[in-house]
Amino acid sequence: MSNPIIVLGAGRSATVLLDYLNELAQNEGFRFSLADASESLLQSKSSRLPLADMQVVCGTEIEHFVQLIGNHRIVISLLPPPMHPLVGKACLITHSHLVTASYESPEMRSMAEEIEEKGLIFINECGLDPGIDHMSAMEIIHDIQSRGGVIKQFTSYTGGLVAKEFDDNPFGYKISWNPRNVVLAGKGVAKYLKDNRTRLLPYHRLFAEHDDIHIENWGDFEGYVNRDSMPYVSLYGLQGIETLQRGTLRKPGFCSRWNVLVQLGLTDDESQLSFSPGQDYSDLMEVFLTGFKNKPMELLENLSGSKQISKDLLNLGFEPQNAEKLERFHGSPADFLLDLIVKKWVLKPSDKDLVVMIHSFIFLLEGVEYQTVSSFGMTGKDSVETAMAKTVGLPLGMVAKQIHTNRIQQKGLLLPLLEGIYTPVLKELKEFGLRFQTTTHPLI
Amino acid sequence: MSNPIIVLGAGRSATVLLDYLNELAQNEGFRFSLADASESLLQSKSSRLPLADMQVVCGTEIEHFVQLIGNHRIVISLLPPPMHPLVGKACLITHSHLVTASYESPEMRSMAEEIEEKGLIFINECGLDPGIDHMSAMEIIHDIQSRGGVIKQFTSYTGGLVAKEFDDNPFGYKISWNPRNVVLAGKGVAKYLKDNRTRLLPYHRLFAEHDDIHIENWGDFEGYVNRDSMPYVSLYGLQGIETLQRGTLRKPGFCSRWNVLVQLGLTDDESQLSFSPGQDYSDLMEVFLTGFKNKPMELLENLSGSKQISKDLLNLGFEPQNAEKLERFHGSPADFLLDLIVKKWVLKPSDKDLVVMIHSFIFLLEGVEYQTVSSFGMTGKDSVETAMAKTVGLPLGMVAKQIHTNRIQQKGLLLPLLEGIYTPVLKELKEFGLRFQTTTHPLI
Repeated sequence: MSNPIIVLGAGRSATVLLDYLNELAQNEGFRFSLADASESLLQSKSSRLPLADMQVVCGTEIEHFVQLIGNHRIVISLLPPPMHPLVGKACLITHSHLVTASYESPEMRSMAEEIEEKGLIFINECGLDPGIDHMSAMEIIHDIQSRGGVIKQFTSYTGGLVAKEFDDNPFGYKISWNPRNVVLAGKGVAKYLKDNRTRLLPYHRLFAEHDDIHIENWGDFEGYVNRDSMPYVSLYGLQGIETLQRGTLRKPGFCSRWNVLVQLGLTDDESQLSFSPGQDYSDLMEVFLTGFKNKPMELLENLSGSKQISKDLLNLGFEPQNAEKLERFHGSPADFLLDLIVKKWVLKPSDKDLVVMIHSFIFLLEGVEYQTVSSFGMTGKDSVETAMAKTVGLPLGMVAKQIHTNRIQQKGLLLPLLEGIYTPVLKELKEFGLRFQTTTHPLI
Repeated sequence: MSNPIIVLGAGRSATVLLDYLNELAQNEGFRFSLADASESLLQSKSSRLPLADMQVVCGTEIEHFVQLIGNHRIVISLLPPPMHPLVGKACLITHSHLVTASYESPEMRSMAEEIEEKGLIFINECGLDPGIDHMSAMEIIHDIQSRGGVIKQFTSYTGGLVAKEFDDNPFGYKISWNPRNVVLAGKGVAKYLKDNRTRLLPYHRLFAEHDDIHIENWGDFEGYVNRDSMPYVSLYGLQGIETLQRGTLRKPGFCSRWNVLVQLGLTDDESQLSFSPGQDYSDLMEVFLTGFKNKPMELLENLSGSKQISKDLLNLGFEPQNAEKLERFHGSPADFLLDLIVKKWVLKPSDKDLVVMIHSFIFLLEGVEYQTVSSFGMTGKDSVETAMAKTVGLPLGMVAKQIHTNRIQQKGLLLPLLEGIYTPVLKELKEFGLRFQTTTHPLI
C-alpha cells in the first residue's frame, strides 16, 4: 500500500511541516513521502524524519509529476507558485487531493469544475499569509456577523521579519523565507477599498506611502498595501464594507530605504544586464544613477533626501571604495539585488525570526461602533525552526490531516474560509503556542 | 491572375501608402488589394482608390489570413504589432513577402531560417520610427565609416506631434497616430549606452529625466529615451561606440505634465476598474489620489510642485466641478485615459500634424573630432493626409515596390539597414519633400 501523503519541496519552509507530518504518521501508523530535486537535501533530512520515504524529482513536465504523485491520496506542495497549475493538473490525473500555501491562481480556477466532478479537494492559501490571516479573520468576521454586527472596516497586515534582539541592520530585515519574494514584493499594482472607493497604488509609490502600525507587545512597524484586496470583499462575506485593506509589515526605516532601490529601478526583473569579472555593486548602481561612482553620497542624498538613508544604502554594499563584488555576470537587476541581500541579510544559525500579524475591524452593533484588534507575534527557535516555517507549515499539515481523516465535507476548489476548516486549525495552532490577542472596545 | 500586393489595415496610417500604391499600380499596370475588418471603412476609400479591390477580413485566426493573402506575392501589414507573428506565419504558408513598420519581434526572429529557406523577404521596421530613422542614420554611418571615421556617439530622436500654428493645448500634443501607443509610450525599462556604460531607466523615471533638444527651423523639444537601444550597437555596425541613445520627442511642457499621470498610476494597463453611470474623471483621479475631489489643486500641487501643471491637468478634464463624464464603465486606467485624450487632443480636420527627427553623431576622423547633426521636419496637409501617414506609409510602399520590381537581392528576415534598400528609399522620399538638413563641424 502506498503512503497516503506526499510533500513536494523540502526547502526551508518545510522543516516544521515535515516534523508535524512525521509525528502524525507515527500516531496514525503510516509512512509519508518527501520529494525534492536535491538528493543531498533529502539525505540531510532523513535521520530527523524516520517515517519519510525520499523521492528525487527528476523533471518538471506533467508526466514527471504524475509518476511522482502516483497513488498518494494527498499532495502538499511547497513548490514555487508558478508550478502549481501543473501540479494541479497532475493531481487531476492521479485523483489526489492538493494543499498549497499559494494564492489561488486563475489557472487553478479553470480546473474548479473538474476538481469537484472528481470528488477531489484542492485547497490553496493555507500557509501564513495567505492562510492563517484568512482563518483568524474569518473566525472574527463570523462571530461579529452572528451577533448581528455589520463590519465597516477591515485591515490586515502580516510580516515575516527578524526578532528584536537579532535585528542588527538598518533595514531591520533578515531572510527567513524565499528571498526572491522579498526582492519582488509588491510588484504590480496594489488595489484596495478605502472609504467606499476603490484605490490603486502603483508599485513605484508603494513604499513611499506606508502606514505606521503598532502591535501590542511587539512594537512599531511599517505597513504597505499589497496585491488586490478587492476579491476578499465577497470571499470574506463583507459586501457593503467601506474599507478593506491587506498588507505587509516591515520594521520602521525599511520602506524609506527600500523605496530608493525601487525608485532607481534596482528591483526590475525584466531587463538583462551583463558585467565583467572584477566589477562590483557600485558598477551596478552606476547603471541606474549616472555619476554614482564619482559622487555616491551626493547623488543618493538628492534622491532620498536623507544622509542616514544614503549611508545605509552605501553600507549595503554599494560604496564605491568598498563595494561588494558581483557574484554573477548576467541577470536582471533583481537577480543582482537578490545576491546582495542573501549575503547581507543572513539569518544566522542562532538568530530568531519573527512573524507578526494584526487584524483591525470596525463594526456597528446595536447602534454602537466598536473596534476589534486581533494580533499575534511569534519568534522562531533558530534559523532552521523558524517562526516562518512554523506558521506556513503547520496550517498546511493540519489541513492535510483534516483531509486524511475525512473531516472536510465539501469537495472542489476551496479556500480555508469555511468554519469547518478553520476552527480545528486555529484550535490546534493554539496547542503549538500560536495565540491571537484580541481586544474589543466601543469607539466614542 | 491575382493582384501582386495586398495591404492589411486601412486605418489612419494607411492614407498616403494607399495613394502611393494606387499611383504605382497605375504606372505599372496592376491592381492591388486592400483588406480591413470594417466594410464601411473600405467603402469610404473606394472612390479615391480606383485600382484597389476591397476584401473584408472576417477573422483573426491563421486560416483567415492564409485565405486572405492567397496568391498575393507581397503583403504590407499595418495591423497592430502583436498580430504580426501570425501574419508572418500565414505568409510562410502562402509563400508571400512581408513588409511592416513594426519592431522585429522575437517570434518573427524564430521564423528567420524558414523565411530564408523559402526564398522570401520579411522586412520589418520600415515606417518612420522605426524606419526612416534607421535608413537616414545608416546613410550617414556608412558615409563616415567609408571615409575612415570612427563614431563615438550617436543619439536619435523622433516625434509625431502637432504643427506650431495648431498647437493649442498645454501638453502640445494632438493625436496623429494610434492613441493607445501614446498612452502606453515608454512602458517597460529604457536601456541605452552612455559613456561606455549600459544605463537603465525604469518607466516611472522616464518623463522626469528628459533632455532638451533643439531642431534648427523647428524649435525646442523634450526628448526621452525609449525602449532598448543596445541591439543597435551591432545592427548599425557601431561596435566600440561610447554613447547610443534612441528616443522620442515631445513639445516643451509635455513631459512634466505627463509625468504626473505616470506617477499617479493613470497609465497602468494591467488592473481593471469599474465605475457607475454618472461618474466622471474626478472619480477616476480619486482612485489614485485619496481626497482629490475635496482639494484637487492642493493635492496635485503637492505632487507636481507647480500650480501651472496642476491647473493644466485639471483642465484636461479632472476638475471636480467640471469633470468630463466617463465614457466606459469598465477598463484599465490606461483605457480611461485613452478616452480622455482622444477627446481632448483631437487633430481637427484642418489641423496639421508635425513629424520631426534629429540624429546627432560625434566621430573622430584623422585625429579631429567632428559633430554631424541631421534632421528633418514635415507638417501634414490636413488631419487625413498627415505627415505621420506620409512618413510611415511612403517607406512601406517604397520597400514593397523594391520587392515588386525584384530590386532586393537578399532573402530572409531583413531590416532596412542595407545600402541597397535605404538608398533608393531615401532618394524617392526626397521627391516627396522629405529632405534631411545635415551639417558637420569640427568640435574644438
